[in-house]
Amino acid sequence: MTDRDDPEEFRALAHAVVDWIADYRAGIAAHPVQPQVEPGSVRAALSPLPERPQPFDALLAELDRVVVPATTHWQSPSFFGYFPANASLHSVLGDMLSTGLGSQGMMWATSPACTETEQHLVDELAGALGLPETFTFTGGGGGTIEDSASSSALVALLAALHRADPGWQTDGVRGDERIYVSAETHSSLAKAVRVAGLGSKALVVVDPEPGGHALSPDALAAAMSADAGAGLRPVLVCPTIGTTGTGTIDPVRRIAEVAREHGAWVHVDAAWAGVAALCPEHRSVLDGVELVDSFCTDAHKWLLTALDASLLWVQDGSALPAALSLTPEYLRNPASESGAVVDYRDWQVPLGRRFRALKLRAVIHARGLEGLRAHLRGHIALAEEFAGWVTADPRFTLAVPRSLSLVCLRVVTGRGSEADDAATRQVLERVNASGSAFVSHTVVDGRYVIRVAIGAVTTGPEHVTALWDQLCAAADAVLAESRS
Amino acid sequence: MTDRDDPEEFRALAHAVVDWIADYRAGIAAHPVQPQVEPGSVRAALSPLPERPQPFDALLAELDRVVVPATTHWQSPSFFGYFPANASLHSVLGDMLSTGLGSQGMMWATSPACTETEQHLVDELAGALGLPETFTFTGGGGGTIEDSASSSALVALLAALHRADPGWQTDGVRGDERIYVSAETHSSLAKAVRVAGLGSKALVVVDPEPGGHALSPDALAAAMSADAGAGLRPVLVCPTIGTTGTGTIDPVRRIAEVAREHGAWVHVDAAWAGVAALCPEHRSVLDGVELVDSFCTDAHKWLLTALDASLLWVQDGSALPAALSLTPEYLRNPASESGAVVDYRDWQVPLGRRFRALKLRAVIHARGLEGLRAHLRGHIALAEEFAGWVTADPRFTLAVPRSLSLVCLRVVTGRGSEADDAATRQVLERVNASGSAFVSHTVVDGRYVIRVAIGAVTTGPEHVTALWDQLCAAADAVLAESRS
Repeated sequence: MTDRDDPEEFRALAHAVVDWIADYRAGIAAHPVQPQVEPGSVRAALSPLPERPQPFDALLAELDRVVVPATTHWQSPSFFGYFPANASLHSVLGDMLSTGLGSQGMMWATSPACTETEQHLVDELAGALGLPETFTFTGGGGGTIEDSASSSALVALLAALHRADPGWQTDGVRGDERIYVSAETHSSLAKAVRVAGLGSKALVVVDPEPGGHALSPDALAAAMSADAGAGLRPVLVCPTIGTTGTGTIDPVRRIAEVAREHGAWVHVDAAWAGVAALCPEHRSVLDGVELVDSFCTDAHKWLLTALDASLLWVQDGSALPAALSLTPEYLRNPASESGAVVDYRDWQVPLGRRFRALKLRAVIHARGLEGLRAHLRGHIALAEEFAGWVTADPRFTLAVPRSLSLVCLRVVTGRGSEADDAATRQVLERVNASGSAFVSHTVVDGRYVIRVAIGAVTTGPEHVTALWDQLCAAADAVLAESRS
Repeated sequence: MTDRDDPEEFRALAHAVVDWIADYRAGIAAHPVQPQVEPGSVRAALSPLPERPQPFDALLAELDRVVVPATTHWQSPSFFGYFPANASLHSVLGDMLSTGLGSQGMMWATSPACTETEQHLVDELAGALGLPETFTFTGGGGGTIEDSASSSALVALLAALHRADPGWQTDGVRGDERIYVSAETHSSLAKAVRVAGLGSKALVVVDPEPGGHALSPDALAAAMSADAGAGLRPVLVCPTIGTTGTGTIDPVRRIAEVAREHGAWVHVDAAWAGVAALCPEHRSVLDGVELVDSFCTDAHKWLLTALDASLLWVQDGSALPAALSLTPEYLRNPASESGAVVDYRDWQVPLGRRFRALKLRAVIHARGLEGLRAHLRGHIALAEEFAGWVTADPRFTLAVPRSLSLVCLRVVTGRGSEADDAATRQVLERVNASGSAFVSHTVVDGRYVIRVAIGAVTTGPEHVTALWDQLCAAADAVLAESRS
């Protein structure tokens, strides 16, 4: 055993790892989607860190014995929780290549290929999504791959603070900044506001449109005007295309028109649903996006790409570096100083970065853009069918209209909302405890709701049908119990 | 071609990918370490995103044709720049397993194994490093794996702000916060201060100890007292164990004693050098660490683990969740509410997270802790030898004393400091342009310095000798030119 790497040892071990992954994925449906394990049981079962080298087989055996049985199988075809985390096997291939190359793409000079492959990808993908050319590097904007939509929201907020007052870099925040969201906006915006030192006082939760959940442009206009009148500064508004709770699509165009009057930055959080714009028939979700400053959608949710790959575009390609750049001597280099290159470290909070573009490029290469569209359309069609079953069944009701591949439902007991809440929760618990499928929940207008997010890479009609059967059986049992 | 994953297709393609990686690593020394490419050339050479599926071979061919020739080969044995980014092949295996599992470990409930494997790893590793038990979950503290030391510094700062004034969550920063660093502290601290909304006015650069570069505890005491007397609040001080420029080790114990008098949080940035504490003979680098609040060292620099894996420990296991937690309805679950589990989303800025622990666990499994120590000791011994050559050679001088595996040198022209600066820069440019090795630079006390960071996974005596020969040849040429 040498302390240097041996590519031939790797070749042998990696083939075994590949087989392990292929076998795990081939057999994934046999596992309970969510494990039933006690806190601390995994820690107690893991072996201590060894002093001396151990055979690699033993690691794979430990995965089988300890890790897999305590894993929530996000890649299971019966995983319908939260939003999907698509780690397609094509993206696994791309990620292997990225880790194998071992690049560190903090600056163009520290790996030109890492930076330019990403630039090429985000420019091309902007076109495929139907984003205006002003979001591309070619058109004066640009894009990047952050680790998460949370980080995308944070850097958009920092760019907004900088644009609102460049003195922010020296003097810090002033306390008069205001950030506008809806009650449905993802919690990452509230977290970004906290991280950025603004405090929750800066977060204005705008009323929804009457009878719905979308952020109301009229209420936004009133809130912004009142704040501006009170000497406060509207800095950013975040409309969502496909909220986490209900898949609500905020009216981006009208929101952006209101925001413009106050010079506020508009950041669109389309983490889950934005990728639907790859399909011309769903491109209307982007209506008004030409008026916004930044747009984020995650390739690691519904676009077949393993964590972490959050796509962020801005119309002003200098906005993020202006806000975030800070150059110590040891990072100075002629390429950066020429201004002819992009240094992605200035587009994010961390300094170091992986070659994330490869995993998404591998997916698109292997499936083609048409394969991506087929993936999305398949899930949307399944959700449409599923929503039809809910609507037609007296045991259930849709909590909100279906949004793309997300269906939100409640159990109907006929004995009032609180009984419906309890029954809905019990149905969710029964389905999840069975291990045959996993769904998660939210609360809408104070009422408990089951969310069915169709979107795992291998989910097909048979899994959605099985989920429906499970829900119906659970509802029958719960309704029978509640009547007895 | 189906739009679902096919594990058998993956098995075949992944074996080809494994061979590609093994071949790339086996032949890596044949590439120029830093490519000579023009900005834009990679973007121009990449194929557009295809509409229809393409054979996977074509992607590998494009890597060979476009990507590899424009890659800075961080895994080359002749890469001596910045700090190393160890993507050992054992860590590649672990990362493959992580991506293959496709877990999303934002909360314990979303994959108990992902969370507890990480808890187990950081607890065990704390022991191996000689951190006090109070940094472990077992001892009331705890650790996590962030993406980068930059993010570790940011969350430590946020925890410090919260501890200093919990009203921070509602009211934001106050403007009276002060953060103490040295001129050698990594720029990520200044970035964290900016991100957190404090502005550069909050950043106090403390004088060094006389005749050195380490942060002076006496100067810190004076600065903190003066600030406190002026009504400002010392919130955090960041000593570094192994600064990026020169490898300087700040006197952590005395700094922490000063900080305690003012209730300031002490965050130790040991991103590069902290791992040396695995070796008992280097454990003194941690002297005083029992007095600090948080400690960070990167497994992805010098501990054989592919990006991204920054290890962060805190003595108060509730500090990060207290500062960062924020729970929307759709993330509520019984395990979290029981208080019996750790939800790592509350230890970081992003929500989603990869199963990062596996890649480090794979490394330690395959090499044993003794293999890690051998890796570190080998580089330190090489650096010691290299520093001896520098000291003995009239063409060169050490700019600062060797620190572990980092050697900082200058060319000596005999014609004054400015001539030395110019010659040193020319030598660096010649070596890097040759492609046979890569070194980076910094500026120390206003003088240009070549940094030789020995630490790539496959670097051995032959590569260090070759670098020395290159430096000598370049110095001869530069000195001859300057005399002519």
